[in-house]
Amino acid sequence: MYRDQSEEYQALQDTLYVIGGKWRIPIINSICNGNTRFREIERSIPGITRRMLSRELKDMELNKLVKRTVYAGPPVQVEYESTEYCKSFGGIILEMIRWGREHRKVVTKKRNSK
Amino acid sequence: MYRDQSEEYQALQDTLYVIGGKWRIPIINSICNGNTRFREIERSIPGITRRMLSRELKDMELNKLVKRTVYAGPPVQVEYESTEYCKSFGGIILEMIRWGREHRKVVTKKRNSK
Repeated sequence: MYRDQSEEYQALQDTLYVIGGKWRIPIINSICNGNTRFREIERSIPGITRRMLSRELKDMELNKLVKRTVYAGPPVQVEYESTEYCKSFGGIILEMIRWGREHRKVVTKKRNSK
Repeated sequence: MYRDQSEEYQALQDTLYVIGGKWRIPIINSICNGNTRFREIERSIPGITRRMLSRELKDMELNKLVKRTVYAGPPVQVEYESTEYCKSFGGIILEMIRWGREHRKVVTKKRNSK
C-alpha cells in the first residue's frame, strides 16, 4: 500500500512540476485552442501580464512545450505552436474544464434554491 | 469561437482556483487514499512542512474539502476525511497520475536509447 502511494505521489509530482503555477495551464489551453500570436494568447487569458506571459513562453519553449517560429517579414511575425508534448495535457485540461462546469452548476443550483 | 474560449477559460480558472498551489492536489490525493491522521498525511507527502499542511487543512476544512473530527479520547484524536466535493477531483488526479506515468516511460525510453 505504502509503495503504491509513493509511486502515485511521484507521478503526481512529476505532472505538477511541469504544469504548476498559476498560468501554465491557461497558456497551454490557449495555444492548443489555436492562438498563435503573443497578443492573441494575452487577450485570451484575462489577468495575465505581458511580463508573465513572456516569461512563461520562454520557459515553455526551453521545455519543448511550445515551438516558436519567427517569420522574417516585414513585418516580422512570431508564432507559437503547441507541440505533441503540450497536447498530451489535453486529458487533464478537459477534466479541469469539466470539473469547473459541474462546479458552476452546483453553485448556481444552490443559489437558486435559496 | 471567442465566447467558447472565454467560457472554457472561466471553467478552467474556477478549477485552478480550488486546486491551485503546490500542495492542494497531493493533500486531496492523500486523504482520498485513506490517510486520516495529520502525521499520516504528512508522511505521505515528502517535502511538505507541518506549517504548510496545517494551513492547507484549515483552508480545506473551511472550503468543505475535508471534514475534521475530534475524538475526545483520551488520547484526543483528530481525523480528516474527504468529502464528496473532495472526491469530485478524482478524475483530474487520475489524469495527472496517468500523465506522470506516461511521461516517465517517455523519459526512460529516451535515456535507454542514448
